[in-house]
Amino acid sequence: MSQPISPAVLRERLQWRYATKQFDSKQQIPADVWQALEDALVLAPSSFGLQPWQFLVVDDKALRAQLRPVSWNQPQITDASKLVVFLGLRTTAVGDVDRLLARIGKVRGATTQSLDSYRQMMISFVQGRPAPELGAWNARQVYIALGQFMASAALLGVDTCPMEGFDPAAYDRILGLEGSPYRTLCVCAAGYRAAEDKYALAPKVRFAKDEVVVHR
Amino acid sequence: MSQPISPAVLRERLQWRYATKQFDSKQQIPADVWQALEDALVLAPSSFGLQPWQFLVVDDKALRAQLRPVSWNQPQITDASKLVVFLGLRTTAVGDVDRLLARIGKVRGATTQSLDSYRQMMISFVQGRPAPELGAWNARQVYIALGQFMASAALLGVDTCPMEGFDPAAYDRILGLEGSPYRTLCVCAAGYRAAEDKYALAPKVRFAKDEVVVHR
Repeated sequence: MSQPISPAVLRERLQWRYATKQFDSKQQIPADVWQALEDALVLAPSSFGLQPWQFLVVDDKALRAQLRPVSWNQPQITDASKLVVFLGLRTTAVGDVDRLLARIGKVRGATTQSLDSYRQMMISFVQGRPAPELGAWNARQVYIALGQFMASAALLGVDTCPMEGFDPAAYDRILGLEGSPYRTLCVCAAGYRAAEDKYALAPKVRFAKDEVVVHR
Repeated sequence: MSQPISPAVLRERLQWRYATKQFDSKQQIPADVWQALEDALVLAPSSFGLQPWQFLVVDDKALRAQLRPVSWNQPQITDASKLVVFLGLRTTAVGDVDRLLARIGKVRGATTQSLDSYRQMMISFVQGRPAPELGAWNARQVYIALGQFMASAALLGVDTCPMEGFDPAAYDRILGLEGSPYRTLCVCAAGYRAAEDKYALAPKVRFAKDEVVVHR
């Protein structure tokens, strides 16, 4: 087991991160680094462990070219080494709960019976809420994964650019998600900053720490 | 500047993480480690950089004791070294945009004039959406911070437990947030796992990687 990293390393890596506007299209993320970032997505925490998400890694150049015009023509869409489209479940159904329980049974060797009270709790949560509320809840979980992904990338020295500036309906159409349980929520490009990206050197803008972190 | 960490370290630290159910109430997070975790909150990315959040670090024991019964009596609320209540802006107003622009001006020495098109873009985004939609958008940003916080804690060897199982209205009342621009969205306990927490040894349950990460 690896030792924890130091507070100084964490702080410096997170300071180094910024929303990269221009990626070096010639520099690719090495395979072992990318595998760890995919694992960071898989390992992200979620409420009840339901993992109401899917992550589309778009490598196909033609598909990237199709997505760019519906993303305000932002060059990150085509230039970054990797592009991840973050999808969330449109709602949560009993079947989603049972899919998780089946997985728990498989991974932990638990019997369905021993999980019955956990199942009842989740089912009553899901059945007590309208579909759009569950969709919004799922979306929040997806953003946990986005946060874990970007922090992990910064630790590994990989630049990212999170993006909400795109047409989600066009994404759903282009990616064949219409009528599927998933919808597009956000996009994150990953790769390496271009030498000429002037934003890399701009001081990071954050509100004063004592306005943001309040002790009680 | 610190070098990036290795893919193996990232993977092992994220594998080590789990939703800690029992904290060792005697073990406190050292001050330098906690400062880095507060910085991870401050440095979290958000859409437009608006940082529509506040993080309440509840150290007061009496206040923690008040929160526990409205949190399904979960012991993490009182036993963990630290408790962070994640707040999101209920909506986004023109004043929030201007607060950010003033901060950009201060940090980067930019003139208000040079930021005018950026301001117009944000204002038209905000004015084009109803308040509840902006509140939901803000909530998603807060979950980016939650994701960055939990990943950072795992890297530093600090255990966490994210919690949504509480009464948000009771939190808002107890924390004096009623009538304020912020509302309670989620809670995260941080500290060190108790030796007797059996969940620490349970295999992590995640769907198969090829079901979650899909290549296109």
